[in-house]
Amino acid sequence: MVYLDYAAATPMDERVLAAMQPYFAEKFHNPSAVYLAAKNVREDLENARHSIAQTIGARPAEIIMTAGATESINLAFNVPRLKKSKILISAIEHEAVRAAATRETLFTRVGIVRVDKHGRLDLDDLEKQLTGETILVSIGYANNEIGTVQPLWEIAEIVATERARRAANSENVPLYFHTDASQAAGYLDLNVARLGVDMMTLNGGKCYGPKQVGLLYVRAGVRLNPLIVGGGQESGLRSGTENVAGAIGFARALEIAEKKRKGEVERLGKLRDDLEKYLKTSFTFASSVLAKGADITGTDSTIAKTSARTELAKKGIKINGHPRHRLPNLLNFSIPGLDGERAVFALDGRGVAVATGSACAASKNERSHVLTAIGLSDELADGSLRISLGRPTTAAEIEQLKPILVETIREQLKFGAES
Amino acid sequence: MVYLDYAAATPMDERVLAAMQPYFAEKFHNPSAVYLAAKNVREDLENARHSIAQTIGARPAEIIMTAGATESINLAFNVPRLKKSKILISAIEHEAVRAAATRETLFTRVGIVRVDKHGRLDLDDLEKQLTGETILVSIGYANNEIGTVQPLWEIAEIVATERARRAANSENVPLYFHTDASQAAGYLDLNVARLGVDMMTLNGGKCYGPKQVGLLYVRAGVRLNPLIVGGGQESGLRSGTENVAGAIGFARALEIAEKKRKGEVERLGKLRDDLEKYLKTSFTFASSVLAKGADITGTDSTIAKTSARTELAKKGIKINGHPRHRLPNLLNFSIPGLDGERAVFALDGRGVAVATGSACAASKNERSHVLTAIGLSDELADGSLRISLGRPTTAAEIEQLKPILVETIREQLKFGAES
Repeated sequence: MVYLDYAAATPMDERVLAAMQPYFAEKFHNPSAVYLAAKNVREDLENARHSIAQTIGARPAEIIMTAGATESINLAFNVPRLKKSKILISAIEHEAVRAAATRETLFTRVGIVRVDKHGRLDLDDLEKQLTGETILVSIGYANNEIGTVQPLWEIAEIVATERARRAANSENVPLYFHTDASQAAGYLDLNVARLGVDMMTLNGGKCYGPKQVGLLYVRAGVRLNPLIVGGGQESGLRSGTENVAGAIGFARALEIAEKKRKGEVERLGKLRDDLEKYLKTSFTFASSVLAKGADITGTDSTIAKTSARTELAKKGIKINGHPRHRLPNLLNFSIPGLDGERAVFALDGRGVAVATGSACAASKNERSHVLTAIGLSDELADGSLRISLGRPTTAAEIEQLKPILVETIREQLKFGAES
Repeated sequence: MVYLDYAAATPMDERVLAAMQPYFAEKFHNPSAVYLAAKNVREDLENARHSIAQTIGARPAEIIMTAGATESINLAFNVPRLKKSKILISAIEHEAVRAAATRETLFTRVGIVRVDKHGRLDLDDLEKQLTGETILVSIGYANNEIGTVQPLWEIAEIVATERARRAANSENVPLYFHTDASQAAGYLDLNVARLGVDMMTLNGGKCYGPKQVGLLYVRAGVRLNPLIVGGGQESGLRSGTENVAGAIGFARALEIAEKKRKGEVERLGKLRDDLEKYLKTSFTFASSVLAKGADITGTDSTIAKTSARTELAKKGIKINGHPRHRLPNLLNFSIPGLDGERAVFALDGRGVAVATGSACAASKNERSHVLTAIGLSDELADGSLRISLGRPTTAAEIEQLKPILVETIREQLKFGAES
């Protein structure tokens, strides 16, 4: 099987599992207990926090461990609300951000900031919508569907300018900048100071760490309400007996991801670019083949249908996401006339696992809001595939993939034309 | 080391870890993805849910997987609030319940239902406080500090009577009964129909399963608001990519706990009763020894101090919790004049890990609200130790413990008397 859906889930690195192993049955003690064995567990937990903090350039106390990115995002959105508070998110945020933003409509309005055709945030639109009532700006670092990377620092500057304006006018509405960086670990710079963010969500399950383990970086001084209350763990922001094994595994996963980052960015970037080039060539060719085949075999009515389809098919292939500011491991493309979901099933039958839209949206049978937001027609949005490479991906695998992918898509197009 | 703090944390059963193992690096796929590998993972997850449902006599759709008991409790308390809504909890609930009950004071009042000197709920007080505005009654199944088991069925009957009254009067305020059963798995009947609860919290980390894995049983028809929103997993009540390994481990842990239940209840009950008897004998004796020793060695002022202390010490030992309705693995006792926290440290120095109060409260240096609620004086509350036995506990370990425990306590009492 050729698995190419690493943006949806990554296997746990064996070194991560090895780091976690002692905490399952030996060092299992409750870190809140007072005896030595428990204190040692507490120390190990705090060392993991320290290591994570170092990886992202934060202080240990600024790392709040959670049970995954979705929880982290929900926590980040739990900023104290004021009457008429406003929250800004981009048009291509993950479902978790969209849901967290809109959940509490009682006091809060949500502004959706536009993106351009490559999925980059429209900074002018952000500036325009960033008014005095805005309490939170949440912009994903790298998009999970098309891989577009946002200029977080430029966004942070706009946020800082608004903060300075408020300070100058003695307005005391707080304003925070959160980023969902779930897809970024292992590919992009995670240094919170360089990014200029106040809060950042990271996800263990997306970077070869444990599943349902996440964190929220919360800059000292940011005021948040806890989502989950109780024993007061995680500085009171996330109660519940700590997932020590999870934290230790996550720390190790982030450490490895950071160490391998430069190499993997280059390696996977090359494989992705190679695949992209191959597909571009293939689908100009495929279109003409399809056109010819359809002309010969069609009846009158299918010829009419097919001609329209052929016109579309001639456009070949559209690569989605920013040409340069894009995750190196991700390739999202649309082929006119293709049924992305059907293609995923057909590829699955040939031992290739890829995605169309995000896994969450796919399971609900909805059209991708990301592809719509970057201006894709319904046909192009429905005809999209997402291929995401990962650490186990080899050049041989990509070579193996190429003919399967192209043949399957061609068959699908032909099947579509004939149906 | 003799570990006797299983109420705070349990080591993961090796069979649980074995069941989880394939889901770390092989069957790691996102259960929301559409290809076969992911669908198989989804199936395994749903089988785990099915197994859990069977263990507690529920339907699979009624099992909401969470990241631990604290989250489950917070979710259970997220019932839609009305103006003047009231929530009832007992006076001896875990910190998570107390915090969840009081977090949102905007619309909700919290009534604290009394317990008797053994920690059993005062049903008359419950009936009196259960008025038409009550939307939630949350009573822990077995107390984590003193082990007292509540008559859930009798509470459920009182709740049902109030519901019937509302129905007869066409009052449409919903009323739910939740129990935190974190300490119950492996010792008590978990059948939700027999218990009569609408919601029940269970915790993987307390029954030899994975840490920060929990569940909330939510009876079909109960209306809850999600705490964590996003992709809509867990019937929309708990978004976030599922912790498949965790769910599978938890299912296995519950299965084993249920299978071993009768045997362990008997085995640990005997060991606990034996230890209790030994301590009762020892501490009548210890008191007189202490009295004599103090009389001989004391100066005038220490004699005066010591006499008062000796008077207390003569009372010997007080066993906390209900004599019969108590977890079989738990022994909580108070010894007048003892400093529980200091005793825990001294025992730790001799290789014995026990607790005083709950681990959470202990780390915050607060006096146990549970011991206060059952009417213990400050001195008796401060002089309490909690010993909790577990599956690995052997008769030999208890024999090893006995002299260490008694000698340490005697030394502590003497040290206290001389200081």
